[in-house]
Amino acid sequence: MAEPEELLEQDDDAYALDRETIRVVRDAVDAEDRDALLAAMEPMHPADIADLLEQLDEGPRHRLIALLGHDFDGEVLSELDEGLREEVIAALSPAVLTDAVRKLESDDVVDLLETLEEPQKEAILGSLTRPDRIAIERAMSFPDGSAGRLMQREVVTAPEHWTVGDAIDFMRASLDLPEQFYHIVLVDPRYRPIGHVTLGKVMSSDRVTPLRELLEDSFRTIPATQDEEDVAYAFNQYHLISAPVVDDNDRLVGVITIDDAMIVLSEENEEDLLLLAGVGDESIADRTLQIVRQRFPWLLVNLGTAILASLVIAQFEDVLAAVVALAVLMPIVASMGGNAGTQSMTVAVRAIATRDLTGSNAWRVVRREVTAGLLNGVAFAIIIGIVGVIWFGNVLLGVVIALAMVINLVVAGLAGVLLPILLDKAGVDPALASGTFVTTVTDVVGFFAFLGLAGIILL
Amino acid sequence: MAEPEELLEQDDDAYALDRETIRVVRDAVDAEDRDALLAAMEPMHPADIADLLEQLDEGPRHRLIALLGHDFDGEVLSELDEGLREEVIAALSPAVLTDAVRKLESDDVVDLLETLEEPQKEAILGSLTRPDRIAIERAMSFPDGSAGRLMQREVVTAPEHWTVGDAIDFMRASLDLPEQFYHIVLVDPRYRPIGHVTLGKVMSSDRVTPLRELLEDSFRTIPATQDEEDVAYAFNQYHLISAPVVDDNDRLVGVITIDDAMIVLSEENEEDLLLLAGVGDESIADRTLQIVRQRFPWLLVNLGTAILASLVIAQFEDVLAAVVALAVLMPIVASMGGNAGTQSMTVAVRAIATRDLTGSNAWRVVRREVTAGLLNGVAFAIIIGIVGVIWFGNVLLGVVIALAMVINLVVAGLAGVLLPILLDKAGVDPALASGTFVTTVTDVVGFFAFLGLAGIILL
Repeated sequence: MAEPEELLEQDDDAYALDRETIRVVRDAVDAEDRDALLAAMEPMHPADIADLLEQLDEGPRHRLIALLGHDFDGEVLSELDEGLREEVIAALSPAVLTDAVRKLESDDVVDLLETLEEPQKEAILGSLTRPDRIAIERAMSFPDGSAGRLMQREVVTAPEHWTVGDAIDFMRASLDLPEQFYHIVLVDPRYRPIGHVTLGKVMSSDRVTPLRELLEDSFRTIPATQDEEDVAYAFNQYHLISAPVVDDNDRLVGVITIDDAMIVLSEENEEDLLLLAGVGDESIADRTLQIVRQRFPWLLVNLGTAILASLVIAQFEDVLAAVVALAVLMPIVASMGGNAGTQSMTVAVRAIATRDLTGSNAWRVVRREVTAGLLNGVAFAIIIGIVGVIWFGNVLLGVVIALAMVINLVVAGLAGVLLPILLDKAGVDPALASGTFVTTVTDVVGFFAFLGLAGIILL
Repeated sequence: MAEPEELLEQDDDAYALDRETIRVVRDAVDAEDRDALLAAMEPMHPADIADLLEQLDEGPRHRLIALLGHDFDGEVLSELDEGLREEVIAALSPAVLTDAVRKLESDDVVDLLETLEEPQKEAILGSLTRPDRIAIERAMSFPDGSAGRLMQREVVTAPEHWTVGDAIDFMRASLDLPEQFYHIVLVDPRYRPIGHVTLGKVMSSDRVTPLRELLEDSFRTIPATQDEEDVAYAFNQYHLISAPVVDDNDRLVGVITIDDAMIVLSEENEEDLLLLAGVGDESIADRTLQIVRQRFPWLLVNLGTAILASLVIAQFEDVLAAVVALAVLMPIVASMGGNAGTQSMTVAVRAIATRDLTGSNAWRVVRREVTAGLLNGVAFAIIIGIVGVIWFGNVLLGVVIALAMVINLVVAGLAGVLLPILLDKAGVDPALASGTFVTTVTDVVGFFAFLGLAGIILL
């Protein structure tokens, strides 16, 4: 039989860590061969090194970190899955940690600090130079998950009356321009951004051209307190590359670039996907006990709703005792309702996240889901009705299951779209609880309709 | 009672189309007041206009398009949901369509053409100038969903021996630089990219500095035939801003920028989310009959698997007839298994998509899921066992449901992680069928274990 390792060859996945590299690294760690380890890891991007650490077991991971010593790259910490950061930081010696953190950009340090407990936070802040520490503490004063946390503070600005030549001379003379920047932000005398110019336009224009004539149409500022999810949405919707961040007085305080927004977008999407499945903030690198603890509460809620459905069934014990065939067919109606409800719900949750389901079209979408539920309900009522008649040779049983199917698929469409809307309205993330709620509704209605109709029609 | 429209106020969602704007636009369309319509839409971004069109009913949508006439912005077509593009294009007069398409960048035209049927494709290609048409047909020669389709052909290049001054003089003299560009790509005499320099570095360096000294570490090229999903992964993983695209001979053929990669990433995430819920490529703007057709096949598969589960139950009709309480408790074990399986599966599907679950750690993840299933299984076995004993006053019934719970949660963990791995291995998108497959396994095993154990222990 094939080993599970053999199952995922991934020859077809570009950019996956290749197994040969992982094997070489593992061998080097086992042999405590520092030179071989450094040679194998030298060409690797910090993001790939982070993935490598995530794929190793705890023992080899710690031995690798020890073997690397001061060659541990600080950027790996930023790339690591949050669940593993604390463990890796704890495994670094204080001297290595100081080295690693000092080489990071300020927004990466902020991102790192956000996920750590107090003692580790202190250790890292303590390892920074005083100006860096003050800058970082200022960034940390913005709310968690806000644009202020996401931004970098270094912005290239120019007074609004400058020409292309002024800007170029200024940049030539600057010693500490940011690592990556794409726009020059024009500010008024009160340091409020009034527009921005791409470097490409600056490059291709005459020195005498006023910067003001080169402003981009797509310019938008972002309030420092705005939720990072909204920031990511704005970047994706308006194809922004970078956007200045302003404080309550519209003064420039930093800039957010698209690469940061892309990371947020990807994290938010992952969060919604996991939430819909009843999993919290979980990763493949988490340990067994972590995932047991993570999943237990969701399963407990599901147990509660499953018992609720059983209580409905219990009301019909006499009907079940009279016609055992009902117990056989009963799960079909509930299962179909659960699936149809999940379909409607997922489309609705996604549409709310992308602002495509709003007050203006909610009513139309509800009507559409109910109609679609009715049409598919009738189709499956005919199919399952015929199956029921053939299987149990009882026409009335076929009628019962057909009617229950129509009812449950209509209810599934309605619940699937209304519940996310109501949760959103109540200020709850619609992805959070829709799944369990919707299947509870379709289970309860499915069993009630099927057994209730059976009690009326068959007995 | 509140109208459904009232349910989604969205005051708290930044960037959602505000209802006032939508109302003004609707009124202008109803009154056929072209000036009011243009005034309301003038400040809107094409992406917001596309969202607006998606939110209107078909009638007002067509009246709005007619009223706009030649003021219809071509970029709106690129921003529109694919499901609606054909309808909107069909509603445009040929003259307006020609106008609209001519103003688009070449990669946007390619993106548009991909989603259209032959006659509309011809109409659009016919409306282009000859050089544009040739350029677009060349792009369309790359496979659907490849880097070649995603890239723009306009790249700013420099010979490898140029200095900063050479590059600036060249750009000043160029009349048709791309709208947006962030790097100058250095090419060798055979037009193979050897690295790139950010405009920021060019700006801040002396004119005599060789470009070769300013090359970025993060440089990567992308093969034109690479899948766009892999491209998006690379941008996200390596924080790329732009990357040159090369042909089979490593020659430069175009460039992909992060904003295009971000759109792909967002689409891929949406696709996975919908696939997991058993919905195809569906949008909130689709019409009722479209969604009925979309969802029917998935529900049909589910019906098949539900009937399979019923066939399992049917094997135990005599057990059910003897102890009706079994019918009451039966769905609990299946439901818990389905939920636990969905949890494991979602984490696995996501980890495969992000290359975090690979051959190197598959075995460890499988072991972890099975152990987690066992631990949660024991916890819930105790809870449901006690509930069963109290509810039905039958200790043996409690033992039966407790044992079945442990078995099903272990199987759920195993199936939840193994099925996506096997589907991926078989070259099928693991998001595609995992949901239905996993719940089929947990339903069948749940009913079989519970009723089978009941037959042995209770009868």
